[in-house]
Amino acid sequence: MAPTPSAQFSLDLLISLGEDPDALASLQSAIEAAGGLIQALETVEAEGDTTVRALVVESGDQATMDAVEAAAAAAPGVTLLSALDRTLELHRGGKIHTGLATAIATREDLSMAYTPGVARVCLAIEADPEMATEFTIKKNTVAVVSDGSAVLGLGDIGPHAAMPVMEGKAMLFKEFGGIDAVPICLDTKDPDAIVEAVRLIAPGFGGINLEDISSPRCFEIEARLIEHLDIPVFHDDQHGTAIVVLAALMNACRLTKRRLEDLNVVMVGAGAAGVAVARILSTVGVRSIVPCDRTGAISTARPDYEDGTMNTVKTWLAEHTNAELRSGSPAEVLEGADLFVGLSGPGIITAEDLRRMNPDPFVFAMANPDPEVRPEEAAPYVAVMATGRSDYPNQINNVLAFPGIFRGALDVRAQTITEAMKVAAAQGIASVIGPQELAPDYIVPSVFDRAVSPAVAAAVAREAEHDGVATGEFTAVSP
Amino acid sequence: MAPTPSAQFSLDLLISLGEDPDALASLQSAIEAAGGLIQALETVEAEGDTTVRALVVESGDQATMDAVEAAAAAAPGVTLLSALDRTLELHRGGKIHTGLATAIATREDLSMAYTPGVARVCLAIEADPEMATEFTIKKNTVAVVSDGSAVLGLGDIGPHAAMPVMEGKAMLFKEFGGIDAVPICLDTKDPDAIVEAVRLIAPGFGGINLEDISSPRCFEIEARLIEHLDIPVFHDDQHGTAIVVLAALMNACRLTKRRLEDLNVVMVGAGAAGVAVARILSTVGVRSIVPCDRTGAISTARPDYEDGTMNTVKTWLAEHTNAELRSGSPAEVLEGADLFVGLSGPGIITAEDLRRMNPDPFVFAMANPDPEVRPEEAAPYVAVMATGRSDYPNQINNVLAFPGIFRGALDVRAQTITEAMKVAAAQGIASVIGPQELAPDYIVPSVFDRAVSPAVAAAVAREAEHDGVATGEFTAVSP
Repeated sequence: MAPTPSAQFSLDLLISLGEDPDALASLQSAIEAAGGLIQALETVEAEGDTTVRALVVESGDQATMDAVEAAAAAAPGVTLLSALDRTLELHRGGKIHTGLATAIATREDLSMAYTPGVARVCLAIEADPEMATEFTIKKNTVAVVSDGSAVLGLGDIGPHAAMPVMEGKAMLFKEFGGIDAVPICLDTKDPDAIVEAVRLIAPGFGGINLEDISSPRCFEIEARLIEHLDIPVFHDDQHGTAIVVLAALMNACRLTKRRLEDLNVVMVGAGAAGVAVARILSTVGVRSIVPCDRTGAISTARPDYEDGTMNTVKTWLAEHTNAELRSGSPAEVLEGADLFVGLSGPGIITAEDLRRMNPDPFVFAMANPDPEVRPEEAAPYVAVMATGRSDYPNQINNVLAFPGIFRGALDVRAQTITEAMKVAAAQGIASVIGPQELAPDYIVPSVFDRAVSPAVAAAVAREAEHDGVATGEFTAVSP
Repeated sequence: MAPTPSAQFSLDLLISLGEDPDALASLQSAIEAAGGLIQALETVEAEGDTTVRALVVESGDQATMDAVEAAAAAAPGVTLLSALDRTLELHRGGKIHTGLATAIATREDLSMAYTPGVARVCLAIEADPEMATEFTIKKNTVAVVSDGSAVLGLGDIGPHAAMPVMEGKAMLFKEFGGIDAVPICLDTKDPDAIVEAVRLIAPGFGGINLEDISSPRCFEIEARLIEHLDIPVFHDDQHGTAIVVLAALMNACRLTKRRLEDLNVVMVGAGAAGVAVARILSTVGVRSIVPCDRTGAISTARPDYEDGTMNTVKTWLAEHTNAELRSGSPAEVLEGADLFVGLSGPGIITAEDLRRMNPDPFVFAMANPDPEVRPEEAAPYVAVMATGRSDYPNQINNVLAFPGIFRGALDVRAQTITEAMKVAAAQGIASVIGPQELAPDYIVPSVFDRAVSPAVAAAVAREAEHDGVATGEFTAVSP
């Protein structure tokens, strides 16, 4: 059975119908028989017996979409004028463009925005480089930098193919944070070259959002850029996920009246996000974290740690978590756990395994598109469930974090993003859900909740001031 | 005497007036006495005896602007509420921002513009990298790259202070070419590092406009980038100027029925633009070019060429022009010249020197803000005069060239910009002035003539196809 029809696999069909009165009905039947769902149908032209109609048809996958197009082309009495893949068309020519703060319609405009007037602005910045954040786009512009090495679940698809994701990210920065973001996809995977390129382009940017850079290179690249630059550098795949996980956990604790420091955590998935989750949970006082890969718990007692074949990420996790040296499969170490964090893939544990957890456990199964355990199956055993999917409650989605974090950081001209600012961001997200609203299926706000980004921005800006990394004064900017 | 009041030195004044009926008149007198020109005055609030009024006051320079503000503050019966420098305010927060091709208002929008739908677009590009120019901003986006080493007439002011100029350039790209441009100011002056950084960021861009990079580094940087990249690379300070000079010259020849190949040219200024002018004039058949620096004609017979102390730019000029080995001061070599091209500064020649030129000569005195010879003084001796200034006829301004050149190159996905495309661009500019319109004071179209950019784009695109560097089909895109 094909997946549920949705917008991502939808077609714009333009058809012409002649005098046959049954043609439209037979077209509709043919589309439905092929698995398509007609979402819209309108007449765009009518002349004599001929009418031209536009249809939007959703499908569940590419094969169904192709079948719908073929069915429309073959329907009797119907001429298919065009069939356009709506998702591809939306991307045609790119998804972002340059807008101008002021028109250049007259010589006066030109003399103020460009030569000769611009020279005075240049000289003001030359005299005081801090003025760059007043009089240039640096004040509100972030570079979204990727090497295309770990894009979504697609892997190493390279810088050109990564662009649509970075443009999408730029759209989210604007839509939810009011931030101008520029996608920069780098034609190299060498960490030295990436660090150098980002360092060199930095003068025009107020922040650097690293994106979809594979582990473990992402750690070194982020750390070196933070050291080199006096603007925030933030690898979203690590920290964005960690912050939203923490926000969800804070609300799960509020809901069930538990304390973070009392939780026993099992985490499966030893990638970039795993390290960031372990780090932020430690920062807020979680004492027991048992990280696992597919083979089981990671610790300094494992043979691959002892013989030095363990990779750098797992080595970090072994050295910074699991002080109890727990061992065993992910399913086995669930014994006594209060929280399961899944950052891996389906099939790691079964719903039955959740029985071993402490009473009323939290399960955040974030593998996408297939969670480690399906919410329907986990339901009998869990108090609170979250996933990475938009079709279940409590979606852990980075878009809840990064627009507000950069908004807050830019607003106070933070020079870096501290661990405390990340925790504050999580508190900001969590705070959007009021005490009366909090429920097992509502610990994470909607990605379309417009209160989230300002709450995160305010929390992050306050914490930046508290941490002494803010160099400007906070004035809330509405996104 | 202060220069003519203009928008670039203008103030927004907000003042409050009490019950004194003479206060406004005395304010107006005080502003005028200080040298200000009141361009606008309106009441923004009135309550009882108190009125709040907004004024726009133009000045001729910074000192006058300061004097105007002081005069307004001191005027009897007037409270100065605020005085804002309009040019600085126009730049506050930067002059460009990100616009979105589509809103992200619903989950459906998100599923098409971002995850999960975007993955199909990524895969389409991974399968065929050419698709990047269909489905990403690469199709219409140019990087405006500078190291801030030769900005306007300000010199080496660095990457932060260069940003307002690059943003202004990005505005002009959009306004006149419909092109999305991203300012990239690099924190290095090392040619190797610049070449590498630009090479690495290139995947997301459809073209590279190099800007305000000092000579002779600009030649090497441009040449190496052209070799590395399969997208157009164009150093505007060189070629933009050369193209507009050629356009002006073509029209001067049309007007006076002369042929390019018969002209004797004297050019003063041996910088980046000088080399480009010499090159493009040679390309179109000009046989006699005598380049000069302040000391006089450059040739392979000069002692500094012979002893190897001549810089690389002058050496190139010596080896590629002045085959007759003319020598002497700029004023001396004007003897027998038909065209004087000034790319230097005032005081190099006098109006009197122009007498030595052939009858009805052309004088393009482009030094800014002070031309090599003032049009008023040159008038008795010249047939056609052009400058770099907007307050005289025939302004040689790069904005006539670069938006249309990149528009045409992007439209046909040109992989490079050939010399023939540059010549075509000049023809495109020149063609905008019809045979009946052509006049000594109208050989160069206005920078606000909206016919210029499409004419240039069409000429450049056609030539790219002819030269075999176009990889896509030309469809005119209106700017």
